[in-house]
Amino acid sequence: MKLSMTLLTDLYQLTMMGGYYLLGKSRERANFDCFFRKIPEDGGFCVAAGLEQLIDYIQDLHFESEDLDYLRSLNLFPPEVLHFFKDLRFTGDLYAVPEGTLVFPQEPLVRVTAPLPEAQLIETALLNILNFQTLIATKTARVCIVAGEDPVIEFGVRRAQGPDGGLSASRAAFIGGARATSNLMAGKAYGIPVRGTMAHSWIESFSSELESFQSYARVYPKNVVLLVDTYDTLRSGVPNAIKVGKELRARKAGDLLGVRLDSGDLTFLSREARKLLDEAGFDRTHILGSSDLDEWLIESIKEQGAEIDSWGVGTRMVTSYTCPALGGVYKLSAIFEDGEMKPKLKVSDDLEKTTNPGIKKVVRFFDEKSFMRGDVLFFADEILPPHQAVQAFHPMLAHVHKTYPSMYKREEILVPVFQGGKLVYSKPTLQEIQARTFQSLHHLRSEHKRLQNPHLYHVSLGEKLFRQKQELIKEVVG
Amino acid sequence: MKLSMTLLTDLYQLTMMGGYYLLGKSRERANFDCFFRKIPEDGGFCVAAGLEQLIDYIQDLHFESEDLDYLRSLNLFPPEVLHFFKDLRFTGDLYAVPEGTLVFPQEPLVRVTAPLPEAQLIETALLNILNFQTLIATKTARVCIVAGEDPVIEFGVRRAQGPDGGLSASRAAFIGGARATSNLMAGKAYGIPVRGTMAHSWIESFSSELESFQSYARVYPKNVVLLVDTYDTLRSGVPNAIKVGKELRARKAGDLLGVRLDSGDLTFLSREARKLLDEAGFDRTHILGSSDLDEWLIESIKEQGAEIDSWGVGTRMVTSYTCPALGGVYKLSAIFEDGEMKPKLKVSDDLEKTTNPGIKKVVRFFDEKSFMRGDVLFFADEILPPHQAVQAFHPMLAHVHKTYPSMYKREEILVPVFQGGKLVYSKPTLQEIQARTFQSLHHLRSEHKRLQNPHLYHVSLGEKLFRQKQELIKEVVG
Repeated sequence: MKLSMTLLTDLYQLTMMGGYYLLGKSRERANFDCFFRKIPEDGGFCVAAGLEQLIDYIQDLHFESEDLDYLRSLNLFPPEVLHFFKDLRFTGDLYAVPEGTLVFPQEPLVRVTAPLPEAQLIETALLNILNFQTLIATKTARVCIVAGEDPVIEFGVRRAQGPDGGLSASRAAFIGGARATSNLMAGKAYGIPVRGTMAHSWIESFSSELESFQSYARVYPKNVVLLVDTYDTLRSGVPNAIKVGKELRARKAGDLLGVRLDSGDLTFLSREARKLLDEAGFDRTHILGSSDLDEWLIESIKEQGAEIDSWGVGTRMVTSYTCPALGGVYKLSAIFEDGEMKPKLKVSDDLEKTTNPGIKKVVRFFDEKSFMRGDVLFFADEILPPHQAVQAFHPMLAHVHKTYPSMYKREEILVPVFQGGKLVYSKPTLQEIQARTFQSLHHLRSEHKRLQNPHLYHVSLGEKLFRQKQELIKEVVG
Repeated sequence: MKLSMTLLTDLYQLTMMGGYYLLGKSRERANFDCFFRKIPEDGGFCVAAGLEQLIDYIQDLHFESEDLDYLRSLNLFPPEVLHFFKDLRFTGDLYAVPEGTLVFPQEPLVRVTAPLPEAQLIETALLNILNFQTLIATKTARVCIVAGEDPVIEFGVRRAQGPDGGLSASRAAFIGGARATSNLMAGKAYGIPVRGTMAHSWIESFSSELESFQSYARVYPKNVVLLVDTYDTLRSGVPNAIKVGKELRARKAGDLLGVRLDSGDLTFLSREARKLLDEAGFDRTHILGSSDLDEWLIESIKEQGAEIDSWGVGTRMVTSYTCPALGGVYKLSAIFEDGEMKPKLKVSDDLEKTTNPGIKKVVRFFDEKSFMRGDVLFFADEILPPHQAVQAFHPMLAHVHKTYPSMYKREEILVPVFQGGKLVYSKPTLQEIQARTFQSLHHLRSEHKRLQNPHLYHVSLGEKLFRQKQELIKEVVG
C-alpha cells in the first residue's frame, strides 16, 4: 500500500473542506498563522526547522485514487466532494521563516493565505512537521551551547519515536548544531556525517577485552575509538586502549583517536582516564562521554571539571525528553469577503491565548553591535519609514510599550515560499541551514541563551496592529 | 531517493559487522534478548507492540545498491565487506511475544539467535520500533483503564514526533485500547475507525456560531458533533447546538450526536452542559472532552463528577509526554563456540543492570481464577514437569524465592516468529491485537493497574538459571 503524505491529516480537515465546497465557500480565501505560545522548558529561544519537508509535502499535495477509494469507503462524503478532493492542489501563498532562524512565542513561523479548503487541509502535516523538527533543533541548540567547543554527536535513533522520529530528529539535531549522527539513514538522506565504532557486544564476543580492541584496531586502524567501560574502565578499559594505541603507533598504522565512557561517574572516570592517557603519551586522544545525557547534565558535568571533550547524546535529545512536544498552533487570522480582507481574532480569558488579527509580517531589530533586540509584528502591507524610530506595543497591555531607535537595522524574517501555489524559494543545503543557526545564535545576546531563567526576548505589536486588535476585542466581547 | 529501512541503523552495527566478517567471525551465532528495565511512569505493566512492523522490516532486510554506494562513499569499508553486506539477509531465529501481550521488566520481549552480523544489524530498528510502539500502547492502555467504559479517541497527529511518529502512534494507541483516531493515514493503513467533524476555524469562517452549526448539520446531518467553546460554551455554544439538534429532529434528518468541549474547566462545563442538554431532551447526546488530557487528568476530572462520556486525547498520549521513551535494550546473552552455547552475562554494580545469561523462555503462571501471578524465566530447553510446583528465584538474591503451585496454569509467552530466516508466524489483524490487549488486562489483577504505586508483578528465575547466573557472576568478578 502506498501511503501518500496527503492523508497525514485529521478527518475534520476533510469534513470542513467538503462542507466549504458544498456550501459554496470553497473559493473563499483565508489567512492562517502557525505560531507557538511557549518555549519548551522555559527556554529563551527556538530554532525553526522543518520547512524543507513542508515544501516537499505541499509540492506533492494531492489525493491518489486509492486515497479517494479509502475516503469513499467512509460513507461520509458525497461523490461531488470526492471529485472536488480529486483535483485539489495547493494554489495559495505561503511565507515562512527559513530554517535555522530563531523564533519566539506569538510570532508567525509560517503564514498561509489560500482558499479555505487548501489552507485547512495542510494544517495537520504542517504542524506535525514544524512542531517536531523545531522542538529537536531547539533542544540540540541548547545542548550545543552548553557543550561549547566540544562536538556533540547524535546517537538517538534506537529510542526515537518511530523510524521517522529517528530520521527527522537526526536532521533537526544537525540543524540545531550536532556535528554528526550514528544514524545511517540520516547520513544517506541528508549528507550528515556519521560516526560509530563498537558496542559492548563486540567486546563480549571476544575472549578478552584486549583481544577485542586489538582485533578492532587491526580492521579499522584509522577509526580507533574504543569503548572502555565493559569490565572496569580504569583498571582494564583505558590500560588496554593505551596498549592498543602503542601497538598502532609501533606499526605506524594509526593512533588511538578516542575512548568512550558510557556508564558510571563520567566526571571522575574522565579525569582519571585523562591522567592515564596523558601519562602514556596519548594527550591528543579524545574522551567521548555518553549515557543518558542532556543539556542539564552536560552543564553540570562540565562544571565539575570533567575531561570529556566530545558528547554522544541520544534519547534525551531526539525525544526532547523533558518536553516532548512543541505546542505549535495554526490559527485563522483573516477571511477575504468579496476580495476584502477582514481580520479575525479569537478572544480568550487567557491573555496569551487571544490571537493577533490580520495578515502580518515580523520585523526583527538589531542594535549597533548586531545583537537582536526584539521583534515587532506589523500588517504585511504597512510601510515603515526607514529613518524613523518605531513604537512597539505589548500584545495586550496599552501602557507597556517601547521604542526601537531609527539606527537599528531591520530584517523581515518571513520570506515568500509559495506564491499562487508555485515554489518561489530556493532550498538551502542542510549545511547552510546549520550555518544559519550558528550565525543566528551569534546575534542573540547570551542572557537569552541561559538554561535557567533566560531573559525574555520581546515580541511586540506595531501601533496600527495594536489598535486594530483592541477594536476587534471590543467588537467581539461587546 | 529511496530510503530503505535497512539503513535505519547505527553506523557501529556496520563497523562491527565488517569486523566480524574480516576476522572470520561472521558465522558465529549469538543470542540477544530485547527487554526493558523500568516501566514508564512507575506503572504496573507494559503492553507489547510493534512486532508487525519488525516482521516487515526483517522480511525486507537487504541493502539496495544505492545504499552500498553510500556506504562505499564513507571510505570506511573495504570492498569485500561491501560485498558481504550486499548478500546479507536475515537467516536466524526470532521469538517474540505477540502484540497486545503484557510485559514486565527484565523479561525478553524478543529473542534473536542468529549469526553475529545479522543479530547486530537488526538491533537499532528492532529497538526503535518496539520501544516506541510499546511505549504508546502502554500509555494508551493506562488512559483507557482510567476512562473505563468511555471511548477514548486519539487526536494526536499534529504534535506527534514526525509523520511516522503520528502513524505508528495511532497504531499503537489502537492496540492500547483507543477506539478511533483522527489520523486518516492510520485509518487507511490499518483500518482504524476515524473520527472528526470541525475545528474552531470552521465556526469563525461563518458570520455566526449558529450559522456555522446549521451549515454543518445541513451538510453532514448524520455526523453532528459540534464544537461548542469558540465563544461562550454555556451561553452560546450549547444553546446553539440544542437549537440545531431540534431543527435536525424537526426535519427528521438526524440528531445532535454530541458536543465537544475543548477548553476551560471541563468538569464544570460538562456538568452544566449535561443539564442544558437533558432539559432540552438531548439526554442521549454525548459530551466529548479534549484539551491536553492524559490518564492523570482524566482520573481527576472523573473523580470530580464530570459528565464527559468520550475523551479526545492527543499530544500527551501520542508522545507519552511524561515519559517519552521506553528504555528497551538488546543484550548479548550467549555465543555459540563450535556449536556449543556459551551463556554470557554483563555484570554491573547496579543490581538491576546485571543481565540474565543464556537462551531463555518466559513462562507465565495463572491462578485458579485465571489471574496472572508471575512470570519465570527458564532456559529454553528446560522441560518443566507438568504436575509439580515450580520454584521461582529473585533475579539476584538467593534468599528471596517463592513457589508457584502445581495447579497454576502455565503459558509460554515467547512464540516462534522466524526460524532459519523464514517467517513461521501468522500476523493477527489489528482488531485481534486490540482484543488481545483487552483480554490480557482482564487477567491482570486490579492492583497492578493503579496509576499510583501499583503492586509489583514478579519476574523471577527458574532454579537452574539462577544457579548458572550466580556461577557466571563469580567467574566474571573473580
